[in-house]
Amino acid sequence: MPESHARRREAFRELLRDRQVDAALVTDLLNVRYLCGFTGSHAALLVHADDESRTVFATDGRYATQAGEQVPDLERLIERSASRALAERAAELARLGFESQHVTVDACDALDEAAGPAELVRTPGLVEQLRAVKDEDEIDALRRACDAADRALADLVEGGGLRPGRTEREIARELETRMLDHGAAGPSFETIVAAGANSAVPHHRPTGAVLAAGDLVKIDFGALVDGYHSDMTRTLVLGEPAPWQREIHDLVRRAQAAGSDAVRAGAEVREADAAARGVIEEAGYGENFVHGLGHGVGLEIHEAPALSQRGTGRMASGMAVTVEPGVYLPGRGGVRIEDTMVVRQSAAELLTLTTKELVAV
Amino acid sequence: MPESHARRREAFRELLRDRQVDAALVTDLLNVRYLCGFTGSHAALLVHADDESRTVFATDGRYATQAGEQVPDLERLIERSASRALAERAAELARLGFESQHVTVDACDALDEAAGPAELVRTPGLVEQLRAVKDEDEIDALRRACDAADRALADLVEGGGLRPGRTEREIARELETRMLDHGAAGPSFETIVAAGANSAVPHHRPTGAVLAAGDLVKIDFGALVDGYHSDMTRTLVLGEPAPWQREIHDLVRRAQAAGSDAVRAGAEVREADAAARGVIEEAGYGENFVHGLGHGVGLEIHEAPALSQRGTGRMASGMAVTVEPGVYLPGRGGVRIEDTMVVRQSAAELLTLTTKELVAV
Repeated sequence: MPESHARRREAFRELLRDRQVDAALVTDLLNVRYLCGFTGSHAALLVHADDESRTVFATDGRYATQAGEQVPDLERLIERSASRALAERAAELARLGFESQHVTVDACDALDEAAGPAELVRTPGLVEQLRAVKDEDEIDALRRACDAADRALADLVEGGGLRPGRTEREIARELETRMLDHGAAGPSFETIVAAGANSAVPHHRPTGAVLAAGDLVKIDFGALVDGYHSDMTRTLVLGEPAPWQREIHDLVRRAQAAGSDAVRAGAEVREADAAARGVIEEAGYGENFVHGLGHGVGLEIHEAPALSQRGTGRMASGMAVTVEPGVYLPGRGGVRIEDTMVVRQSAAELLTLTTKELVAV
Repeated sequence: MPESHARRREAFRELLRDRQVDAALVTDLLNVRYLCGFTGSHAALLVHADDESRTVFATDGRYATQAGEQVPDLERLIERSASRALAERAAELARLGFESQHVTVDACDALDEAAGPAELVRTPGLVEQLRAVKDEDEIDALRRACDAADRALADLVEGGGLRPGRTEREIARELETRMLDHGAAGPSFETIVAAGANSAVPHHRPTGAVLAAGDLVKIDFGALVDGYHSDMTRTLVLGEPAPWQREIHDLVRRAQAAGSDAVRAGAEVREADAAARGVIEEAGYGENFVHGLGHGVGLEIHEAPALSQRGTGRMASGMAVTVEPGVYLPGRGGVRIEDTMVVRQSAAELLTLTTKELVAV
């Protein structure tokens, strides 16, 4: 992995030169992790635009050993305040970039003081821009995260875990435990299990509600592996599906296929949303699809790009995104089907492989 | 709980009048939760200094139903950007406080634009100041969180879960599962299980390392209940303790008792640290106690007050804090003992009740 990190820093330095800053102070912990591999809870990184050998990593004494192991290739400072120490180090420079979308108003004052004569320059979103396009190390982690989720859901269904009488919460917990069994460090977000009328609530939190025969059960969940998040939704039915359940499941499935087909390098992000939304609107359910089509996924569960009606920009090869249309009928039930996939030149590469047929359990 | 929230907002309004602002925009989600009970992932609150009836809550469409249930007592706006909508609402005011320790530089620009003629005034840390002193609803949640952790550890030990041959990770996972059994929504932070030489690393993350006879096993963990975090550390030994293990365990235990005795309303926070540290220094292990004595705990696992050498201010009745001295012998092993307790007038009220004797399993 050190080679990946060095390549990422090289790409970052190019962005810094574009922005005409001498260096940038990276203080967001996920961005620090992305650029150098450190996973502790306090750190910062000073990256010079021109000279990799002047890159400095800082953390505090709790992490001295861990930093030696995870960041062997960079100069390391051990200081009580990592960002302050690096801002002081940067005082000799003319223009110092900082992450204005992460640094708070109060923290900015402190950095400004520490950086002395150096001018602080807003350089928001540069690392995030790089992070939107995954390298193969990252895609491998995402693939393993998606695999853990696929296997956990298969175990749950095959083990008879989805049945009338159990609560949403019990099912969420079993699914999370099964993901750990398959190598996840944890769930990638709070697992959603929504049964019956609750399935019509897009972001329902599992409750003590008991599953009943005939319920739609919407399960939205993911696994965290090596810091990367998978994200998948499937909606199953307990027993024989009613005609309306079949109808909206089939509709959402067609919308999801249309959205996935529109995911390719060079396409506008909003085209993918429009492709899926069009299918749902045509069927007369446009008002029941109340959210965007999907989002980027990686070190964060939600990151760039946004695949929505308001999204801007184009998809690039290597982006990892979700495609998750839904139709929600308040008081009755809802269906969402979601995959995680990688944007490639021709067709998207699917990472979540669980069937999208309507499964009746 | 609505009565608790109304009382908290009343106390907050008093702080706003002290700061001579007309209102404050609360955007930190934990602070929003504290002041009104909302638990979703996007919200903001506009609190007027003089008039509770002008308090406005905002969230987006995903949470309209949840907001109606959790925040029935306030005017609710459903908008795509909660903070922007409330800043626009505040444009009629002269001075609008905001959480400058949470709001980023870029977000502050957006608020400033939305608030138009209103002057944005930095009012950092006001809700956190209130949160440092818990009300009885909060102490009750902390008590239940501590109880879940106590019971989980007892189950683990009584069930024979701590034994040579198991990995740190297996034990961490069993402990987390057992906390769920006892009503936790999850662990309150990433469970630390550190065996043998790993116990000398203050913040070790569980690995595949296998426990061996004679190991010290340091376990630092907590449960999350109703949003409140418990925090406890115990260090056990596998088999008959060696003399050096007994010695440092006894030393840390005496230091922990001295620190706990110094926790009382009116005492300086640094006095508690000094009381525990003095015991360890006197025994010649001062350099092996490499962190502060403890920290406040509540809606965050680390919050005000800091019980450390550099800490300032006095303890107040109702604060919830940890007391967690440790002695770490690199390459050999370490001992930490930690309780969560509530500051009261005379003696602290202990919330974590597991024995602090050296338990040999």
